[in-house]
Amino acid sequence: MKIREPYKKLPKIVETSIEWNGAMGFKCNSGSGHEILADASAHHGGQDGGARPMELLLLALTSCTGMDVATFLKKRKRDLRDMKISAHGRRTPNHPHVFETITLEYVFAGSDLTDDDIRWAIDLSLDKYCSVAGMLRKVCRINYHWKVNKTAPGAKA
Amino acid sequence: MKIREPYKKLPKIVETSIEWNGAMGFKCNSGSGHEILADASAHHGGQDGGARPMELLLLALTSCTGMDVATFLKKRKRDLRDMKISAHGRRTPNHPHVFETITLEYVFAGSDLTDDDIRWAIDLSLDKYCSVAGMLRKVCRINYHWKVNKTAPGAKA
Repeated sequence: MKIREPYKKLPKIVETSIEWNGAMGFKCNSGSGHEILADASAHHGGQDGGARPMELLLLALTSCTGMDVATFLKKRKRDLRDMKISAHGRRTPNHPHVFETITLEYVFAGSDLTDDDIRWAIDLSLDKYCSVAGMLRKVCRINYHWKVNKTAPGAKA
Repeated sequence: MKIREPYKKLPKIVETSIEWNGAMGFKCNSGSGHEILADASAHHGGQDGGARPMELLLLALTSCTGMDVATFLKKRKRDLRDMKISAHGRRTPNHPHVFETITLEYVFAGSDLTDDDIRWAIDLSLDKYCSVAGMLRKVCRINYHWKVNKTAPGAKA
C-alpha cells in the first residue's frame, strides 16, 4: 500500500517564542497558541518548573513519529487501540553532550496488528515522513523496537 | 573570560514517554516529571490540544541556548534584566519537511550589555555548549540576530 502525501499543507514556517524567568526557566509559546514551561533542575540553577530542553527534543521526535504511525496504521485500516512510545537518549560525555543514540520503544494494543504492519509504519515514518527524525537521524543513531498487546476485536485496550 | 564546565553532572540518559489519545494527540511525560501535550491541527486530523512536534523542536533549541546565554552573561556579571528568544523555522517543500533554516532573534534588556558580550555568549552557546544546537546545526543553517533594550542600572526591564 502506498501512502500519498499523508499531511497536506504543512506550514512552511514554524514559529515559537520564549520568555526568560530570571533564573533558568522559560515560558514557551508555540505559534499554534500553546504554552509550556522549560526549566533546568535545581542542581543547574533552575527551579524544575518545566521540562528540560533535551527532553523536549525527545518529545518532539516521539510525538512526530507517533502521529505518523497512527496515521499509517489507520490508513491500513488496522484496529489500533492504544500506543505508547518511550524514548531514551544517550548523551556523549563531552560538550555539547549531544545524543549519540536514541532508542524508541513503541508499545501497541490492537486485535489485528502484525509485525509487518508495525515495521512498515515505523520505517515509513522514520525514513520518510517524520520531520524531526529526518533531521536527527543524520546526526544520531535512532534504534527502535516494539511490543504488541493483543486485544479482542473491538475491545478497549 | 573562559567558562569552564558550566553544567556539571548532566544526566547521561534522558528519558520521555508519550501516550496516544486515539486521534493525533499525545500526553507527553518528561523523565524529570513534567507533562505537556502535543497535537496536530484539526486540518491534519488532530484537535489542536497541544503544540506541534516541530514547534517542540524549536522550543528545545531556544530554551537550551537561552539557559546557556543567561548562564554566561551572569558569569560575566552583566546586568541581564530580560531575555526573549523568537525562532522561525523554514521547512523544505518536500517530505520529510525538515527545517532548512532556523532564525533566532534574541531580545535582551539590561543596563550594561554590549554587543561583544552578546555575540560572545550566543556563539559560545551555539558553537560549543548547547546540546540541541550541537545536533541541529549539522543538518540545518542556524542564523541569529539580537536587539538590546537599554535599561537604567538596577531598573526593572
